[in-house]
This record gives sequence, C-alpha cells and structure tokens, in this order.
Amino acid sequence: MAIEQVVDYINANRERYVEELMDLLRIPSISAVSEHKKDVLKAANFIADQFRAMEFDSEIVPTEGHPIVYAEKIVDASLPTMLVYGHYDVQPVDPIDLWRNDPFEPTIEGPNVVARGATDDKGQMFTHIKAAEAFYRAEGRMPVNLKYIIEGEEEVGSKHLAGFLDTYRDRLSADFAVISDTSQFAEGVPAITYGLKGLAYFQIDLKGSRQDLHSGSFGGTVSNPANVLGQIIAKLRDESGRISIPGFYDDVLPIEDWERQEFARLPFDEEGYRTYIGAAQLAGEPGYTTLERKWARPTLDVNGIWGGYAGEGSKTVLPAKAGAKISMRLVPNQHPAKIAELFTAYVREICPPTVELEIQVMTGALPCITPTDTKPMDAARIAIEKGFGKPPVMAREGGTIPVVADLKQKIGVDTILLGWGLPDDGTHSPNEKFNLGDYHRGILASAHLMNELR
Amino acid sequence: MAIEQVVDYINANRERYVEELMDLLRIPSISAVSEHKKDVLKAANFIADQFRAMEFDSEIVPTEGHPIVYAEKIVDASLPTMLVYGHYDVQPVDPIDLWRNDPFEPTIEGPNVVARGATDDKGQMFTHIKAAEAFYRAEGRMPVNLKYIIEGEEEVGSKHLAGFLDTYRDRLSADFAVISDTSQFAEGVPAITYGLKGLAYFQIDLKGSRQDLHSGSFGGTVSNPANVLGQIIAKLRDESGRISIPGFYDDVLPIEDWERQEFARLPFDEEGYRTYIGAAQLAGEPGYTTLERKWARPTLDVNGIWGGYAGEGSKTVLPAKAGAKISMRLVPNQHPAKIAELFTAYVREICPPTVELEIQVMTGALPCITPTDTKPMDAARIAIEKGFGKPPVMAREGGTIPVVADLKQKIGVDTILLGWGLPDDGTHSPNEKFNLGDYHRGILASAHLMNELR
Repeated sequence: MAIEQVVDYINANRERYVEELMDLLRIPSISAVSEHKKDVLKAANFIADQFRAMEFDSEIVPTEGHPIVYAEKIVDASLPTMLVYGHYDVQPVDPIDLWRNDPFEPTIEGPNVVARGATDDKGQMFTHIKAAEAFYRAEGRMPVNLKYIIEGEEEVGSKHLAGFLDTYRDRLSADFAVISDTSQFAEGVPAITYGLKGLAYFQIDLKGSRQDLHSGSFGGTVSNPANVLGQIIAKLRDESGRISIPGFYDDVLPIEDWERQEFARLPFDEEGYRTYIGAAQLAGEPGYTTLERKWARPTLDVNGIWGGYAGEGSKTVLPAKAGAKISMRLVPNQHPAKIAELFTAYVREICPPTVELEIQVMTGALPCITPTDTKPMDAARIAIEKGFGKPPVMAREGGTIPVVADLKQKIGVDTILLGWGLPDDGTHSPNEKFNLGDYHRGILASAHLMNELR
Repeated sequence: MAIEQVVDYINANRERYVEELMDLLRIPSISAVSEHKKDVLKAANFIADQFRAMEFDSEIVPTEGHPIVYAEKIVDASLPTMLVYGHYDVQPVDPIDLWRNDPFEPTIEGPNVVARGATDDKGQMFTHIKAAEAFYRAEGRMPVNLKYIIEGEEEVGSKHLAGFLDTYRDRLSADFAVISDTSQFAEGVPAITYGLKGLAYFQIDLKGSRQDLHSGSFGGTVSNPANVLGQIIAKLRDESGRISIPGFYDDVLPIEDWERQEFARLPFDEEGYRTYIGAAQLAGEPGYTTLERKWARPTLDVNGIWGGYAGEGSKTVLPAKAGAKISMRLVPNQHPAKIAELFTAYVREICPPTVELEIQVMTGALPCITPTDTKPMDAARIAIEKGFGKPPVMAREGGTIPVVADLKQKIGVDTILLGWGLPDDGTHSPNEKFNLGDYHRGILASAHLMNELR
C-alpha cells in the first residue's frame, strides 16, 4: 500500500477535517477557571471518541485535576513506536472585549480559523489524530505503533502529568515523541524546534492594613502595599532587562557559537516583528540579538498586577492589599526549584517589615534541548519537506512545554517539536488563529512522518 | 425665645431625625460612577425638599456634572450670616465583598449607623439642616441668616463648584462658613480643625504592545508595561516615604513649633492607631511624628494599580497595558497645578521610550489653614462645649476639602471645620459608620452655634 492513497484520502477529506476541528474549538475547555471543569471534561470525551472510532485502545485517565486522554495502537512490536503529546485545554480569554467574535464560536477569516485554542493546541494536536485516521480509513492499519497522550492541564502547569507518566511508564515506551505546540519560523518557513525555555511562576500578595484606608486620613503613616509592590518589582530586574536576583544566572548555559550563527542566518524581520507587536521600540538584555533573547536568554515579567481602585474616576484610597503574578522563563540548565528558592529569599529580603508578604510558588517547568542528529529527526525533516514543500529550519522557542523534559526524564524519550502554527497566531491573546492550510499540511506531514518510519 | 426650647425640640425629635438620615443614606449617590447619575439627582432632590419644608429660598442648580443644592434664609440683614457647605454624594463601595451589609441599606449596629456616606458627608452635613429645622419648628424663625451649599461632586473633585461660587458670588456673602466633614480628635474629644491638606491626583497609562502577548514567545524582546510601571512607582518615593520628584518640597511650609507642641500634647494612642489600621508596623517620613505626618507633611500614594491577568491560576502573558492612579496630599503652600507640572515632567523623564505613556491630571485641590483667633471660632468653641459637654481641641487634618480654599479665594470667607465623626468611621472604606449620639450632639452644637452668633 503506497502513501499516495493516504495522501489522497487526506486531500479528499479536507473539509470534514476542518468541520471536526471547529466542533472541538466550540468546547470552552479553559483549565484555569474552575467553572469550566465540565467543558474540559467534554473536550476529553471528544478526543477519546476520536480514538475509539479508529479502534485504538483508549481511556480517559482521571486525575485530581483535569483528565488525561491516553490511546495506543500497537500494530507490530518490531515496528518503531511514535508517541504523540498534545493538550485539549486552552488559556483564559481575558481581555474578552478585544475579541472580534466569541472565542468559542470558531470563525473563518480568510485562510484562518479564529478561536481560543485554534493553534494552542487543539488545531496542531488534532493533525496527528487526523493523520492516523487517514491510515485507518485508507490503508486499514497504522504504519507504525502509535501512542497518544492528550492532556487537559497544559495551560495550568501540567500538574498531574508527571504522576501519569510515572504510573503508565511501562506502557509509554517509544522510540521518540512528537509534539506540535510551537510554530513555523515564519509563514512558508517550516521549522523543527530543538530547544524550549522553562518556567518559574509566582504570586506575591502584600497586605498593609486590615481594610482600604482614606488616603488623606492615613496616608504617610503606614506602608502602602501598592507602593511597596512597585519597589519590589523595580528591584527584580534592572531597566535593561537584566535580572537582579542574586545567583539567578549561575546555571545559565551560554549560547553556543553555532547557534548564534544559525539564528543570525534566519530570515528574521526585526522591524516587522516590532510592527506586529505594536511596540514603540524593541527592548531587552544588552549584548544579545532579539532572537537570542527570545530563544536562549532567561527573562522576568510581571504577568498581572492589581490593588486598590481601578474603576472610573479618582478614589482617594490607600489599598489594603496589592499583588502581582510574576514569572521567569528559564533556559538550560536553570532549575525552577532552585529559582524558586532564590526568588523567594530575595523578595523576602527586599520586602519591608511594614507590610505582610505572602509568596506562592505556582508552576515550574524545566528548560530543555533535544539532540538534532537522530533518525526520527531525519524522518521529520523529510516529512516536513513532503508535507509543506520545503525543508525545515532549525530553531529554538521561548515558550515552555514541560512534558518535553518529563518525557526525557521519566521515559527516556527525546521529543521532536513540529510546529504547524505561525508566530503571529496570537497564542494566549485575543483573536487566536490557525491557518487552515497549515492544518492540512500538518496532517500531510504527520502522515509522511509515520510513513517514513515504517 | 430661649435656646432651651430649640434644644428640647431636638431632643424630642431625635428618632425622627435618625429615620430621615437613613432615608437619605438609602440613595446610592456615587458621583464617580456614571450609572448612578440618577441616584445622585435623587439625593439632590431629597436635600432640596428639606429646605422647601422650612421655607428657604432653595434651588437645584444644574452643572455639567451633578447639581448643587443652594438654599438661603435671610431673616435680618443686620444679623450675622453663616454659610454651611456639605455634600450629598458618596464614594464608590469597592471592595463590595468586605461590607457586612448592603452599603445602601443603612444598618444600626450598636451606637452607629453603618452605610456608605454615613459620616462622609451625609450624616454630618445633615446636622446643620436639622438644627435649622429645630429653630423653624420651635422658634418660628432662624436666629441668624443661613446659606447652604450642598454639592454632589465632592468625591470626584468638586469640578463645578468653583464655577458655581463665581456665578453666585454676590448671593454667597457671609461672615464665616461651617463645614462638618472631618472628625473629632477621638471618641469624646471633639475638635475644631484649622488646617487641611490639598490634593494632586493623576492617572498613568502605559502601553507596551497592541495586545497581550505570550510571555514565552515575546518575553525579553519588548518592554513589559507592568514592569515599567513598577520602576516608575519606585522612583516616585524612596522607601522611607520621602518623595523623589525634583522640586516637590520647595513650597512646603514647615510645621511651626507651637503646632508641634500642640500635637504632642494630644491624647494620641500610636499603638491603638496601628492596631486599628491592622498594620504590621507604622511607617513614614523620617524626622516627624505620626500626627505630623498625617496632618502637616505631604504624601504620595498609589491609589490603584492594574494590568495583565489578575484571575485564578497562572496566565503566562505579557500585559499590553498597565496603569495606576497616583495621588499626592499637599500641604500649605504647595499648589496642585505646580505639582502637576513637576509630576508630569518627572514621569515623562523616567519613563523609557519603549512604552507609550499617557498621564491624566485628574483632580487637584489647594491645601489651607484657617486663622484661629476670630469671633466665629470663639462661638464655635462655646457651641461645641454646650453640644458635646466638653471644649474642643485644635487639630489639623490629612484630608482634602477643596471648597475651603475656594470659599476663601472667591468669597473671602474663612471656614470653621466642625467634625462630628470619629477617626475610625471607615471613611471611603467598607462598613463606613457614624455614631448616632454624635449625630444628635452635632445637631445640638449646630443649633448652639447659630444661637451664640445672634
């Protein structure tokens, strides 16, 4: 049986594959918001039904949070095994008023589908399911052994995935893993991503008084937690972007010369990037290019800040409380647990005793780098060239996919990151989109990858 | 006709006066929130009806914002004229979840009525209306000429009051003005307040990008407006509370020796104050006592701060925007317009060009000091002693009542501040209260003041 018939099947079913993706996008599976718990479960069932329809052994594995869908099809123990990881949960939709349409009523706009989760990760993940379906329908069997882990907590730190990997370790053995949760380098420039940043995420809560106070009657006699919060934030990072936490850079792996050369060769349009972002100027750590900052240097950002009166008009109040969500993107070989120790100790040191301080260590993820000289990596290069019509570039990525480190540590499997999205897809932002042409090409490339390996 | 009959009338009508106050407190006249515009108007009508019932010449003067209720009763051109100023608008109620009851369903708790506006300023202002009513009912005429200005925009900066004072200047001539919008020094320690702070209130808005961005994909390459906001806040004030804006202290009138001595003699319980606030420690500008900081030193506070994700869980986002409301309490002889120039120039200087900055100059008010050796001031001392059973102490106040400076500048009238509230009334805070005994004593003192002057 030739791959051509599978490709024909994929081409013939292009519209149906889009309809099915839109059905999945209609489910508001926001893992961070507890009121959406049922929707997250609904998305898990949707995914599990896909596997049942092609006679996989599949199950919805409950966790203390949201469930994990696991499915496998062993066709021949002598064939290679490909493990696919993806996630069916999505980010919250705030600020909702910036969406052109309901984030959970997917809308076709030109070549794209616009919806929360379109690219991150429902659309990308779904390509590997539809590729398997094409083999099932066109060829009657899978070309390689396939295992799928599709989880529902990626956007809240994948808390229960490590436990699942421990419990299912024996069933998860594979020759390599594939994840599509990154992007192409640019439109028409498909990429294989070999490096990811880690994450250390914290929440700081400051309390200055029992309740909000009149700023005239009490101002000047008591610490204002919103002022103190500003002081703390200012001490975390200098104005150039260099992080001020003592010891923070101790374990940072310097960028290698071949990487600097590789990154410098890429067709990166700095002015286009700035314009896309809508920033007055780009900014960042001195001594590094924008791509180096994005991919290979650690960063610190305030993700959210609150306190006092944010409504209309002028309320003359001393806030009782103020807080911030603050996270660091880590690079090899930084460790989130060590960074949590450094961050916590430093914030405790710089916070004055006139306010009460609470620090929550929220989520953490290891950074990682995947070797680029393996057989599955070669197969992936060929598959992308066949699916997308051109060979991929080699890139790193500023985002965090904790499972990549977990798969390596717990099952000894290297992961190949095949991003079908585009850098301007608006991941985590309003009007998130996914190019349906890339969705189709991703399905083709996934089918070719399975075929190249058998 | 003796004052005793007026006092008897006030005592006999104590319960009805409370009921009428509670009717007024039920009107949610929040001037800062545009959806309450009708409620603000309703409160204006309520006040105007009071004056109509005692045959004052009264009117509801429209402005571009909320209206001003003006009422006058000229009984004899040879008698002194007392001008009363108060306000019927109230602060917003956030954070609403900290209220024990609906802020607009006044609740009797022990000796107090709990409601938004109970003490600031509906309850206090109302004493002067009820005192006049007592003369009207018990004596048939007012003992002095009376003029009342009861406005609806005090909590949003009294934007249209100055224009009203200009337009009505000829009708507003008076021997002195009385305002009850401050507090007694402590429970059982009535005070006359002779100094007020001014105000300069600003909003800063920073924009870093067109929309929120994924912190992994974009972090480190563009300025984060929430980080920049922290840096700006940290540069406005050092950690001791000393304000860092160049030139900020140039016009500050030093505290005089007699004031330091007077303040030091007052029965101020620093530990009780700290415990009431619920602060870990008191804090403030070095070299000054807590009372001096409260009453006679300028301060700078963040009143509100916002940006990015403040919900449940951890959203890995670079906020597109961040902002803060920041205000300074001014002391004589600082001027809010000059402070606005200094603040704006300094913030523009310290804000990096990598973000877009917008500064709104919101409200401003002049600080002021009232002479303490005048005849109305002597009458006020006697009236308080008769109404409250003990002589008042002389105090200043950290709050801002812009009309005091306006009355002096525009009509040449000095204001006597007779605070009937208590320092722990929770002005601008959840569960704002007013002692109904003080409400009654305030009505008595107001009647005695009118009587002492005739």
